[in-house]
Amino acid sequence: MPFAIGVDLGGTNLRIAAVNDSGELLEQVTTGTKVALGRDAVIVEMTEAIRRLAMKFMSRDRLLGVGIGVPGIIDASTGMLRESPNLPGWNDYPVRDEIERRLESPVVLENDANAAALGEAWLGAARGLPSMCMITLGTGVGGGLVLNGRVWHGMTGMAGELGHIVVDPNGPKCGCGGRGCIEQFASATAIVRMARQAIASGNAPELARAASAADVEFSAKFVHNLALQGDRSAQAIFDTVGRSLGVLLAGLVNALNLNMYVIGGGASNSLGAFAPAMFAEIQSRSFVYAA
Amino acid sequence: MPFAIGVDLGGTNLRIAAVNDSGELLEQVTTGTKVALGRDAVIVEMTEAIRRLAMKFMSRDRLLGVGIGVPGIIDASTGMLRESPNLPGWNDYPVRDEIERRLESPVVLENDANAAALGEAWLGAARGLPSMCMITLGTGVGGGLVLNGRVWHGMTGMAGELGHIVVDPNGPKCGCGGRGCIEQFASATAIVRMARQAIASGNAPELARAASAADVEFSAKFVHNLALQGDRSAQAIFDTVGRSLGVLLAGLVNALNLNMYVIGGGASNSLGAFAPAMFAEIQSRSFVYAA
Repeated sequence: MPFAIGVDLGGTNLRIAAVNDSGELLEQVTTGTKVALGRDAVIVEMTEAIRRLAMKFMSRDRLLGVGIGVPGIIDASTGMLRESPNLPGWNDYPVRDEIERRLESPVVLENDANAAALGEAWLGAARGLPSMCMITLGTGVGGGLVLNGRVWHGMTGMAGELGHIVVDPNGPKCGCGGRGCIEQFASATAIVRMARQAIASGNAPELARAASAADVEFSAKFVHNLALQGDRSAQAIFDTVGRSLGVLLAGLVNALNLNMYVIGGGASNSLGAFAPAMFAEIQSRSFVYAA
Repeated sequence: MPFAIGVDLGGTNLRIAAVNDSGELLEQVTTGTKVALGRDAVIVEMTEAIRRLAMKFMSRDRLLGVGIGVPGIIDASTGMLRESPNLPGWNDYPVRDEIERRLESPVVLENDANAAALGEAWLGAARGLPSMCMITLGTGVGGGLVLNGRVWHGMTGMAGELGHIVVDPNGPKCGCGGRGCIEQFASATAIVRMARQAIASGNAPELARAASAADVEFSAKFVHNLALQGDRSAQAIFDTVGRSLGVLLAGLVNALNLNMYVIGGGASNSLGAFAPAMFAEIQSRSFVYAA
């Protein structure tokens, strides 16, 4: 059975998998390649890792191609990254052509959240449904739309940037230049920022005490653990996450009326903490949802 | 050349037109039929007006069918209105089948903003473009999406309800049950409400003086005329309209990256008054637009 290689080029890890054309995972490797080492080092490491994995299966099967999910805006026609806050130095570099040349195999670049959306639509939570939306809660907030079975790229390939939909016009400044984008309320980064603000305000004694322990990594997961333990100031942060996602989802429901909305990414592990506020907000804001 | 009849069933007027299959207007009639007379009276009046117009052209050409734009949510499979705030008493009435039966001609129901979107995509501002979005500013705010040349109906025919996308989560209550929807900031109704609030606050002396003149109809157009005459409190209202539309459009640009966004409807005549604030807001909020 022919196979393909899928690559998730993240800001922290490089994950590479071989899958057959039913979507079954044949083998997966995660390398510790740090983006901080620079573009050329990452390209070499990635190409080598792809080649090693491909060699294992090429003796008996045909390699269809390589798909690479990249956190940023891609120019599909040239195979270049147009803009990627998490991959500095990659702009205007011919990623696709360079890797194609080195591997002698067809390469497809796709925005990582679009790739996640397609995966969920093909084999995941939205399997078999014609249209869906994927929201990824990670360092930032990403998004992808699948309409009638295909990724919706928009006019210039930049559609699906759901992380930069405004949920509060007077909210915090965003890296995109705007203000009050959902990324400022529902990303792991935002959860940590809101927790630090709660501590600084003096109204979150439990959070402050827990955070001052010497061995603590102050992360979204840490805040979530506190919420699980019943800390009200930590829970209040996830209420904000939920309400903000509710505003976003109500708008998407009213505008697009899709079959399914999937929330993924690392911070989606806190679903239990933010889901009640999220559903209450969608219910009150979307008559399409209510109907 | 075969022809069709198009009907715009508004809250105030009933407009009926015969068009040929190139989209050329053959003849248009506007009847004063008031929705307040009730569903059955409107159905009879509409059917008679369609029949009179059709008869004029049927002697030499073939009637392809009748398309009716309706302000509300339509169940495409049953041809019924599911919900229409402006057409009380029409819910669960078989509009399509009833008119088909009386006219003996195929009838298609479509949400009025979706029909407007399709018209703009076919022959109007977005002619020849594969994807576009239409926003209609009237008594309410309507919306329609055309993706790859077709109206996007979503899962249950309710897509395109752009009027109920939230632009300020703490904004005024909306008839849909939500709060801070764009309809509360950019409809003709909202413009009048904001003007009355400005007068009540005592900070809009010119507006108050003009409004107290005996022969004045206090409408969005009236507020617009004052803004044109340089009244700052009236202009401030249109700044709010523009900023709110900018938040909405930045979100749509970031999410959908369409080829064109068209603003229509009666209140769009005030474009000159709200466009500067609108474009400033889009520019600052959408890196997709900026790119």
